[in-house]
Amino acid sequence: MTDTLKLEILEANLQLHKMGLVIFTWGNVSGIDRKKGHVTIKPSGVSYDKMQVEDLVTVDMNGNVIEGKYKPSSDLETHLEIYRQFPKCGGVVHTHSRMATAWAQAGVDLPAFGTTHADYFYGAVPCTRALTDAEIQGAYEYETGRVIIETFKNNVIDPMAVPGVLVCGHGPFTWGKTAMDAMQNTVVLEEIATIACSSLAINSKTSAIAQVLLDKHYLRKHGSDAYYGQK
Amino acid sequence: MTDTLKLEILEANLQLHKMGLVIFTWGNVSGIDRKKGHVTIKPSGVSYDKMQVEDLVTVDMNGNVIEGKYKPSSDLETHLEIYRQFPKCGGVVHTHSRMATAWAQAGVDLPAFGTTHADYFYGAVPCTRALTDAEIQGAYEYETGRVIIETFKNNVIDPMAVPGVLVCGHGPFTWGKTAMDAMQNTVVLEEIATIACSSLAINSKTSAIAQVLLDKHYLRKHGSDAYYGQK
Amino acid sequence: MTDTLKLEILEANLQLHKMGLVIFTWGNVSGIDRKKGHVTIKPSGVSYDKMQVEDLVTVDMNGNVIEGKYKPSSDLETHLEIYRQFPKCGGVVHTHSRMATAWAQAGVDLPAFGTTHADYFYGAVPCTRALTDAEIQGAYEYETGRVIIETFKNNVIDPMAVPGVLVCGHGPFTWGKTAMDAMQNTVVLEEIATIACSSLAINSKTSAIAQVLLDKHYLRKHGSDAYYGQK
Amino acid sequence: MTDTLKLEILEANLQLHKMGLVIFTWGNVSGIDRKKGHVTIKPSGVSYDKMQVEDLVTVDMNGNVIEGKYKPSSDLETHLEIYRQFPKCGGVVHTHSRMATAWAQAGVDLPAFGTTHADYFYGAVPCTRALTDAEIQGAYEYETGRVIIETFKNNVIDPMAVPGVLVCGHGPFTWGKTAMDAMQNTVVLEEIATIACSSLAINSKTSAIAQVLLDKHYLRKHGSDAYYGQK
Repeated sequence: MTDTLKLEILEANLQLHKMGLVIFTWGNVSGIDRKKGHVTIKPSGVSYDKMQVEDLVTVDMNGNVIEGKYKPSSDLETHLEIYRQFPKCGGVVHTHSRMATAWAQAGVDLPAFGTTHADYFYGAVPCTRALTDAEIQGAYEYETGRVIIETFKNNVIDPMAVPGVLVCGHGPFTWGKTAMDAMQNTVVLEEIATIACSSLAINSKTSAIAQVLLDKHYLRKHGSDAYYGQK
Repeated sequence: MTDTLKLEILEANLQLHKMGLVIFTWGNVSGIDRKKGHVTIKPSGVSYDKMQVEDLVTVDMNGNVIEGKYKPSSDLETHLEIYRQFPKCGGVVHTHSRMATAWAQAGVDLPAFGTTHADYFYGAVPCTRALTDAEIQGAYEYETGRVIIETFKNNVIDPMAVPGVLVCGHGPFTWGKTAMDAMQNTVVLEEIATIACSSLAINSKTSAIAQVLLDKHYLRKHGSDAYYGQK
Repeated sequence: MTDTLKLEILEANLQLHKMGLVIFTWGNVSGIDRKKGHVTIKPSGVSYDKMQVEDLVTVDMNGNVIEGKYKPSSDLETHLEIYRQFPKCGGVVHTHSRMATAWAQAGVDLPAFGTTHADYFYGAVPCTRALTDAEIQGAYEYETGRVIIETFKNNVIDPMAVPGVLVCGHGPFTWGKTAMDAMQNTVVLEEIATIACSSLAINSKTSAIAQVLLDKHYLRKHGSDAYYGQK
Repeated sequence: MTDTLKLEILEANLQLHKMGLVIFTWGNVSGIDRKKGHVTIKPSGVSYDKMQVEDLVTVDMNGNVIEGKYKPSSDLETHLEIYRQFPKCGGVVHTHSRMATAWAQAGVDLPAFGTTHADYFYGAVPCTRALTDAEIQGAYEYETGRVIIETFKNNVIDPMAVPGVLVCGHGPFTWGKTAMDAMQNTVVLEEIATIACSSLAINSKTSAIAQVLLDKHYLRKHGSDAYYGQK
C-alpha cells in the first residue's frame, strides 16, 4: 500500500480522537487499496497519542497480515466483510461515539428528521436486528459484518447513499469513498444523532422530512447535477 | 464594498466556527452595503481554516457575481430575499447549530420561556410551515426566503424585533443590523433553544413569560428608553 | 473600598466567564464592604475580555455612584436589596447559566436529589413566584430583590444555608460570605441543576434525599462540628 | 509505600480533574500496597492545581495516619472497607461526575444497554439501597462502604467483573486492579451512564443486551481467552 494512503488512514484515526468521538482506544479506521486488495487498519488496543504510520497493520482480503508489527483491530473482520460486499467503499470507521451509540442501544433507525441529515445520508440510518446467540458465539466480528450487509440488502438501501449503520446494542459503523470521507460521515452521524434526540425531546411526534426535500438536499450535494461547493 | 465591511463579514463567519456553532462548511454569513445594493457572502463549501477576505463573494441584488473567484454559498438566494423584504436588515446568518436545528426539526415555534430570550427576541421565534413539493422542486433557496417572509407577514412580526426564524425541517436563519449583530443573535438563539429544551424536560407544562415581562426585558435593552449597557 | 476586595470581585467576574457560565456580558458579581456600606459591582454591558479593576463601579447602599467611570450593572438594585435583607451576605452573583436558568424557566424548586446538592445547599433551591404586572412595570430590579426576600421569609429559609434562588422565568441569583464564595455557589448550582435534570430524565419519580442525609452532608462541611477539609 | 505507587495515585487524581470528571475538590483516588497493608489517598479539600506527591496521606488499614501532613479525604473509611472486603482491589475512586451521579440520584441500577458497557462492566452497575437513619447518623462513611459490600454480596456480583457501584442519592464509587485502572473505570462509567440516559430518552423501552452478547464482549477483553489488544 502506498505511504500516501497509509498517511490518510493514520490521519483519519487521529482526527476522530482529536474531535472527541473516540476515548481511550475505542475506535478504528481502515482504508483499502482496491487494486491490490489490501486493507490497512489501526492496531488493536494501541494508544492514539503515540500512533505512527508504521504502527498500522496491512492485511489481505482474508485478514492475513502482510505488513505491521501489531495485531490488527479486533473489528477487522467486520471491516473486511463491508469491503467485500460494498465494492465502492474505500474506507470504514467504527466508533462508540455517544449519541450514535445511544441510538444503536435504543435499537431503532435514526430517521431523516431534517436537511442536515439529508445532506449526507439519503434516508434513515438503519439499525440492524440483534445478532442471534449462534452468531455471537460463532465468528462474531464477521457475523456483525453479515448482519450489516443483510440490513442493506433486505431494505434495498444503496450503501454509498446511506454510508452508515447502527449495529443494534453495539454502535455505529460508517464508510465512504475514502478513509477521510468515512471519517467525515462519522462526525456527521454523531451530529445528526445528537440533533434528532433533542428534536424528539421537544416534540415526541417529530417525523421524517418529505421525500422530495430529502431528494433536493441529497442530490444538490451528491447527484450528477450537484451545485453545492466549488464543483 | 469597503474592506471594513468585508472584514466584518469574514470575522462573523470565523467567529461562528470558533464558537462551535458551525462544523465543516455548514454555515454562512453575509452582509449588505445598502447604498450600493451589494451583498458579500461566504463562498460555497470552502473551509474556514484558511478563509481570507479575498475568498468572499460579492453579488448584486439579483445574485450576479461582481467580485470574487469562488461560487457564492448555495443559500445565497435565501439571504437576498431576506435583504429585499426586510429593509433594515444589514447581515444574515444561516447555520445548522445543534439546538436551534433540533427545534426546526421538531417543527414548532421556540416560545419565550424566559428573560434571556426576551433580552434579544421580542416573542417566540417562529417556525415556518413546511415547503410544498412545488417550492422544493422549483427555486428552492429563493422559496425558502419566501416562506420566511410569509411567516413574518402572516403573523405580523417585526423582523428587527424577532431577528430569527426556524425553517421547518431545516434549521435557523438569523439576521441583525450588521453581520456581527446577526452573528450575535445566532449565538443567542442557540443558547435559548438549549435552555428551552431543558425547561421542557424539567416541566412539560412550562409556558411563555407574561407579555409585560417580555416588554420590560426587550425594551430595557432595545427600546427608545433603553437603560442597559453604557448608552 | 480596598483594592484587595475589588480585585476579588474582578476575579470572581472573570472566573464565571472563564468557566463558561457567562457568555457576552450576561452576568454580574458584586461584593460589599459592610463597615463602609459600599458595594462594588461589574459595569453594565462591558466586555469581560478587557475588564480591569478600574472598570468596576462602587456605590453606596442607595445605589449612588461613589467611584467608577461606568454605569453599574442594570441588576444593581436586586443586589442591593439582597445585601440589605441578608446581613451576612458578602457577595452576590447573577447569571443566565444554562441549567439553573432552565429550572427557573420551568418555574419549579430545584429539589435536593443528592448529597452533591446537600454539600452546599441545605434543602431545595426555591423558585420565586412570578412578579406581578405592577412589580414589573414599577421598580423592576428592586422588586426582583423583594420577591427573593419574600421567598426566603415565607418559607422560613436561612439564606446563608441555601445561598441561592431561582427567579421564576428569569434565572439564578446566588450569594455567599464573599464574592468568591458566591461565585463558587454559582458553579455548584449550575452543576446540581444539570445533574437533577438528568436524574428526572432517568426516573421521573426521583425524590429528595432524606432529611437526615441532608443534615449529615451539609453539616459535615458547614456545621460547628464540620470535619471536611483541613479545618 | 513506594514512590512509584504514590506517583500513580497522584497521577490518577490529576487525570480525573483534567478530564472534567471532578470540579473543585469533589473526588478522591486511593491505592493500596497489599503487602504492607498501607493505603495512600488524596488529602481532604486540597486543590488539584498544586497537588504534589508529598500532599498525599498514607494510612494503615484502621485509618491511622502513617505519613503525610494533611487530613485524609473524608471518604477514607469507605475506601478502607472496600479494600478489606474486595481483596483483589488495588485502587478506589469516588467522584460526583455528572451522569453517574444522575443515575445514583435516580436510585436505579445502570443496565448494560450495549457492548460499550459490556467491554468493562460484566452486567448492570448496581445502585445500593438508601442508608438507614441510624447508618447515616453513625459511622457514615464506614456504613457507606458496608452498604456497597452488602449490594455485591446480596446480588452475588463479582466486584472485579463489575468494578463500580452507584451509592443511592450520592454518587459512584469505582475500583480496579490499580489506581490507574480504577480511574479508567470511572471514565467508562461516566461514558456509559451518559449514553444510557440518551438511549432511554430515544426509546423508553430500551432493554439490556442478551447475556450471550454481554459474555462475548466482556470475555474477549477480560477472560482467559481474551483477544483484544496486543496480548
